[in-house]
Amino acid sequence: MNCGADNANATEIANQLRMAEHAGAHAHGLFRLPWYAGMLQSGKANGSAEPTIEQLTSSAIRLHGHNGFAPLALKVGRAPLIEAARAQGIAVLAMTRVMHIGALWPETSALAEAGLAAIAMTSAKPMVAPAGGKKPFFGTNPLAFAWPRGDKPPMIIDMATAAMARGEIQIAARDGHTVPDGAGIDPDGNPTNDPNEILKGAQLAFGGAKGALMALWVDMMVGPLLGEPYSKEQSRTGATDDGVAAGGEIIIAMDPARLSARDDAIAHGEELIKELLAEEGTRLPGARRIEARPHTEQNGVEIPASLHRTIIELCG
Amino acid sequence: MNCGADNANATEIANQLRMAEHAGAHAHGLFRLPWYAGMLQSGKANGSAEPTIEQLTSSAIRLHGHNGFAPLALKVGRAPLIEAARAQGIAVLAMTRVMHIGALWPETSALAEAGLAAIAMTSAKPMVAPAGGKKPFFGTNPLAFAWPRGDKPPMIIDMATAAMARGEIQIAARDGHTVPDGAGIDPDGNPTNDPNEILKGAQLAFGGAKGALMALWVDMMVGPLLGEPYSKEQSRTGATDDGVAAGGEIIIAMDPARLSARDDAIAHGEELIKELLAEEGTRLPGARRIEARPHTEQNGVEIPASLHRTIIELCG
Repeated sequence: MNCGADNANATEIANQLRMAEHAGAHAHGLFRLPWYAGMLQSGKANGSAEPTIEQLTSSAIRLHGHNGFAPLALKVGRAPLIEAARAQGIAVLAMTRVMHIGALWPETSALAEAGLAAIAMTSAKPMVAPAGGKKPFFGTNPLAFAWPRGDKPPMIIDMATAAMARGEIQIAARDGHTVPDGAGIDPDGNPTNDPNEILKGAQLAFGGAKGALMALWVDMMVGPLLGEPYSKEQSRTGATDDGVAAGGEIIIAMDPARLSARDDAIAHGEELIKELLAEEGTRLPGARRIEARPHTEQNGVEIPASLHRTIIELCG
Repeated sequence: MNCGADNANATEIANQLRMAEHAGAHAHGLFRLPWYAGMLQSGKANGSAEPTIEQLTSSAIRLHGHNGFAPLALKVGRAPLIEAARAQGIAVLAMTRVMHIGALWPETSALAEAGLAAIAMTSAKPMVAPAGGKKPFFGTNPLAFAWPRGDKPPMIIDMATAAMARGEIQIAARDGHTVPDGAGIDPDGNPTNDPNEILKGAQLAFGGAKGALMALWVDMMVGPLLGEPYSKEQSRTGATDDGVAAGGEIIIAMDPARLSARDDAIAHGEELIKELLAEEGTRLPGARRIEARPHTEQNGVEIPASLHRTIIELCG
């Protein structure tokens, strides 16, 4: 708030950062606070944005974020999306003009806690080469899927289509470490394990050409389908150094109680999960976040002293 | 028809096989005809199935396939799905009790030719190990995405979440070839390039753990969300040796004209595609199928003499 956010926006950002810290997802936690502050101080983000809702049809809702941060927009869009999905079996929230630097599991998780299956996708400025290409074209373009589990925390898949997070490559470069095969290519398009060369060249999608197609899919869903800039377009429309510009996010919510031909969709999902976990060596995606929560909620979280100082300065 | 299909089913199967051959996708072409015949002769498939439509909501349609083949079901479901997506911006076709052994690009392509973006997913009996696991759990669980391009053929992503097609591994085993890294594991869970060991062990998803999460996503969408058997469940519910049982397919259709905040969604998609193709070394997914068509439509296709004999025998 000291940097220019109003109470509503600051509260939802704080909620999101706290959720991330409790889940042990520090890269999406307080570590991001200086970024939010910087976006406010530079005037790139609208700290008092009031997201508005436009009901396009019974199943399609457009949210206009007015260049504000995603957390408040997600809160505003949630209730109408849940209502539409329950009534129609499927509904879409087409979010425009929002700045999204968080993970996608908070919003998909909230929908799954309301009994819905949910898909979310968003994009960012170019960092990842397309199949066969040498230069950055796609953002890390994450996608998420959440499945409701009744009284249990939802099952959540939340992954960048990039092989590695940008931050991990930057940290490896800073610390002089190599990165695994498949993380990226140098400016000539040759595979490399040198993070500095990748930062000059391009990251790669996970899983080679097929993963690059996933990145393209996300780019189409978040760009032309919503009428928001695709990754490459974002590089010309005010993306920050952190790869985030005001842009699109798509969330599709589906109601298993409406769509399933059985009358026990949640129990059916539990059968799948039980069989999966009965396999030696398997675990559910997102399990680490769920396991971290009781400990961090009880004992608090540790943050670096330097980050603490930065935050204190922002408040000064 | 000689093996037990009625005219409506035989016609749509023939249309699908012809489309695949024209696109140069021989693995989904006449090569599959003996499988269709076998499923009819064994009584596992219903050759005179009349798919029925249940309009669940304005945006959700359930199709009951009555254990028939997918091609006629897809034809029957198409018009109501297109109508719902155009009216609502988004709509879902929840297909149940269909036998699907084809590619997913024919159905997504048909929707994109009607101006819609489309997602399709289906599953099969276990062949692919989950992340961390050693034994088959997921089918090759393909997913597809189609984007409309106005007068041009749609852009279509259509890929198995398995690293390799089952047939490619079987052919490598038959011919004594090795397969690339990442294709699968032996019965002890060790990576191997020996296709025989993989057939005894398990295939792997493309892109390691992240690809395995994509397979899990498809399994949830096609199984518990629709109330149809998930991959592992299919192994107990009449899956054939070819990995196909009567089961689910989900198709989500979205109307860019409704969802885009711009009034030129198709032109916007073309901007993305133009920029992508301007990158050295890139091409559009599905380009090979589109390029093959004029040649094969004019000159016909070649099939192995042995396949020709088999087909003649089926007609005898």
